[in-house]
Amino acid sequence: MQKLFEYNWQVRDDWFSWCETVPEEELLKKRVGGVGSILYTLFHIVDVEYSWICGLQGKPEPEEPPFESYASLSKVRKLSRQYHGEVESFIKSWTDNMENTQLTEVDSNGKTFSFRYGEVMRHVIAHEIHHVGQLSVWAREIGWKPITANLIDRGLFT
Amino acid sequence: MQKLFEYNWQVRDDWFSWCETVPEEELLKKRVGGVGSILYTLFHIVDVEYSWICGLQGKPEPEEPPFESYASLSKVRKLSRQYHGEVESFIKSWTDNMENTQLTEVDSNGKTFSFRYGEVMRHVIAHEIHHVGQLSVWAREIGWKPITANLIDRGLFT
Repeated sequence: MQKLFEYNWQVRDDWFSWCETVPEEELLKKRVGGVGSILYTLFHIVDVEYSWICGLQGKPEPEEPPFESYASLSKVRKLSRQYHGEVESFIKSWTDNMENTQLTEVDSNGKTFSFRYGEVMRHVIAHEIHHVGQLSVWAREIGWKPITANLIDRGLFT
Repeated sequence: MQKLFEYNWQVRDDWFSWCETVPEEELLKKRVGGVGSILYTLFHIVDVEYSWICGLQGKPEPEEPPFESYASLSKVRKLSRQYHGEVESFIKSWTDNMENTQLTEVDSNGKTFSFRYGEVMRHVIAHEIHHVGQLSVWAREIGWKPITANLIDRGLFT
């Protein structure tokens, strides 16, 4: 489980570096599909990972910060770094016997949901990889080479 | 590990059903990014998963079948089903003590690569999710609602 989080964090950092090479208006431009722009996608990935991990830690889920306050590369990157310590510490403490612990959530309509911790962990992993796939299409649309999605050869298993 | 494969297979089946609702010329149309078309993406996912799993089973990797021979929804779906038995049987037999077994491969330039089995398994998982993220953008481009990427609420953990 941890290795897939490490993969996501490495790929995310590569995308942040990639963003430095792209004009900011391209990062903020509204695009078709996904959550609508390159930078908003990265912001959304950071926010969703942190919210779920807060839930698993028994902390209240934070309000989603308004994207308008984070609509620059430096701010999204700073937010990612700010959350990362807590997220990483939880992921590193993960053990298989946490798999079946239940997380109970109440949505905005008052409906109660219950998920196993293992389900949430995999959801967070897949969520980021999926959105990064969207970034790769948009990158090509603006004529830029996307970050490789390869998991092999990243030094994650050495 | 198995749960993420099950997620991929369920999402893939959902995309195959989704494809039935879309004119075949849209499925085959060359698009920007990824491997270039909706159907070729599904074909590529199926082929890559099978090739790596053959490697992990100690079988010779099959030649990549020419996409031209599979350029219809029914053929790609049939190929996916054809490979699935072997793939599923291997994934179901997976145990944690296979993590560090080494797979040694020689590429077309004669260069030797060595990967741990656990690395390859996660690579295959991430590969499919990434490409499916690309499908979701292309779906919106043609005005279709994409298949949800949510892993929670798919009944995978009940």
